[in-house]
Amino acid sequence: MSADTRILNVDLGVRSYPIYIGSGLLGDAEIYRRHIPGERVMVVTNETVGPLYLKQVLAALGDYQVETVVLPDGEKYKTLETWQRIFDGLLERRFDRQCTVLALGGGVVGDIAGFAAACYQRGVHFIQVPTTLLAQVDSSVGGKTGVNHPLGKNMIGAFYQPRCVIADTDSLNTLDDRQLSAGLAEVIKYGLISDLPFFEWLESNIERLLSREPEALIYAIERSCQDKADVVAADELEAGKRALLNLGHTFGHAIETGVGYGEWLHGEAVAAGVCMAGELSRRLGWLSAEKLYRIVELVSKANLPTVPPENIGRSQFLELMAVDKKVVSGKLRLVLMQGLGQSVITGDFDTAELQNTLDEYGR
Amino acid sequence: MSADTRILNVDLGVRSYPIYIGSGLLGDAEIYRRHIPGERVMVVTNETVGPLYLKQVLAALGDYQVETVVLPDGEKYKTLETWQRIFDGLLERRFDRQCTVLALGGGVVGDIAGFAAACYQRGVHFIQVPTTLLAQVDSSVGGKTGVNHPLGKNMIGAFYQPRCVIADTDSLNTLDDRQLSAGLAEVIKYGLISDLPFFEWLESNIERLLSREPEALIYAIERSCQDKADVVAADELEAGKRALLNLGHTFGHAIETGVGYGEWLHGEAVAAGVCMAGELSRRLGWLSAEKLYRIVELVSKANLPTVPPENIGRSQFLELMAVDKKVVSGKLRLVLMQGLGQSVITGDFDTAELQNTLDEYGR
Repeated sequence: MSADTRILNVDLGVRSYPIYIGSGLLGDAEIYRRHIPGERVMVVTNETVGPLYLKQVLAALGDYQVETVVLPDGEKYKTLETWQRIFDGLLERRFDRQCTVLALGGGVVGDIAGFAAACYQRGVHFIQVPTTLLAQVDSSVGGKTGVNHPLGKNMIGAFYQPRCVIADTDSLNTLDDRQLSAGLAEVIKYGLISDLPFFEWLESNIERLLSREPEALIYAIERSCQDKADVVAADELEAGKRALLNLGHTFGHAIETGVGYGEWLHGEAVAAGVCMAGELSRRLGWLSAEKLYRIVELVSKANLPTVPPENIGRSQFLELMAVDKKVVSGKLRLVLMQGLGQSVITGDFDTAELQNTLDEYGR
Repeated sequence: MSADTRILNVDLGVRSYPIYIGSGLLGDAEIYRRHIPGERVMVVTNETVGPLYLKQVLAALGDYQVETVVLPDGEKYKTLETWQRIFDGLLERRFDRQCTVLALGGGVVGDIAGFAAACYQRGVHFIQVPTTLLAQVDSSVGGKTGVNHPLGKNMIGAFYQPRCVIADTDSLNTLDDRQLSAGLAEVIKYGLISDLPFFEWLESNIERLLSREPEALIYAIERSCQDKADVVAADELEAGKRALLNLGHTFGHAIETGVGYGEWLHGEAVAAGVCMAGELSRRLGWLSAEKLYRIVELVSKANLPTVPPENIGRSQFLELMAVDKKVVSGKLRLVLMQGLGQSVITGDFDTAELQNTLDEYGR
């Protein structure tokens, strides 16, 4: 572990854990030794990430008995069926309750593997090794795991915290530009929720991130993880303010479900969703046009979509959003903006303006 | 709620909950009102219990919007496939995160429905209304939920506590004799784990239980729940002494998996498993023959099997037991007896005696 490695702590009492951020970490045997208590490890990865990084991880896990499950790549495989393959692997090899499940890959691998770790023999150890920007800044931190159902995204899952998160920034070098941008959507989101100085830093530094300057990337990952860890520590099970992290996600999930899982990347749908939340906030008189345009400009500079696909109309949007997890007793609640870095969770808005917003995009 | 109703508390800090034991409780609207916070309830039952009790429960839930999922009856349906039907029902009717899942039935219904409640939108409210003796004294209390996998029983699941347990002793009137006896296996187990006075009470009162004397049944249920609640409060996630509750279960699960789920009732397999644990304990010199015979006699009087099926031989037993959740780093641990009411969890025994014990039964 180099001296440049950052270590953040997610403060959750007995479930607290560190996030390691830095270069060369996924091949660092010492970190694994520190956090894997038993003798057996099941590495869950996918057919894209496996060929790139599995060898390094296996070498670093030399002290352990290791088996591997390789899943197909893509959001459309984030299903109960794929999840079951991990149990088949664990049971065929007689893994016991002292084993560790290690997720090596992006958000889909982490969500499925974490949900399997949560449920195998009612819970075994779990470690996240996220290899995409989106997973490093968002999905690997905070313990949300799960899979999609044909009728709704992330509808089946568990809150289950890992023992540590190992974010190796070198793995971003093999990420394609589209995936890098998708991760930036979640980074921009943190600024908009509660961190105006970070949003302004992003406005000045978006080009450095797109050209993958290591220093800029490490800073953005660290700040994003810190912002997220603070919210998660205050509300682990999303009884209240944690829902702020879903800025852009209610619209985004509707887009993902509406176009079919995997057509749009999650981060792309969130980017359009953030702009839609901004547009609705402007219509409600909560956000000035100038601030909305700053959001749209930053999202656009990050090479992300600022509007939803044309073929989802108002009525389909409303139907898809009605199964969202933030619906409370039949009433839709949204994360909206009362300023840059001033997001709120609310069901208290004029639904006519929501319909007008949706009509703006649908054809 | 009549004055005779017993209320026990399972002490788990913020997750504490009451167990109501008494006559006529499943039609008691007041108990539901006290423990169901939202507006919508999904009742999960099966095709045997539904026709008997669903109407009463629905009448008592008159203040709520209620939907129903009816599962097929039997341990062989305790699968991920059956479990998914609950999600389909919840999502088709747009149930949100404030809903309550209510399990009405025996152990299989409770285990599947509880696991669905644990995972739907990462966790919704859950209520247990057990209608079999086995569910009332064991499976509905303590938060173990889950389903079977073809390679092992209860291998996929979660620890998830209900908001309350409502054990209506009237529902035992429709239980057939075989199911009643199966429940008594778990009752006997509590005496053998740590409660010699209860074991002795059972030796004197087994006939009263078999003839369903209400007073005797209520006493046995209350004492069993109290014994279990004490253990669960001390070790919710089975890091240590909770494993004592699995007396007879490692052998029992091997029997259930070996003969095919549903051929033997769970309680029957546990009864034979308790006797096998007793036989091994005797061979190890930990339990006198006289005490072993008292166990065998009580199990036999309860109309339960005292030996495993002949067609499972030693090698199949060892193979089936190797996937048990109590295996630690490859070493099989068992709950064995150092006296009546003095069970211990241990991996420290002569495995030759385990093999001799198994050879005693296999042909």
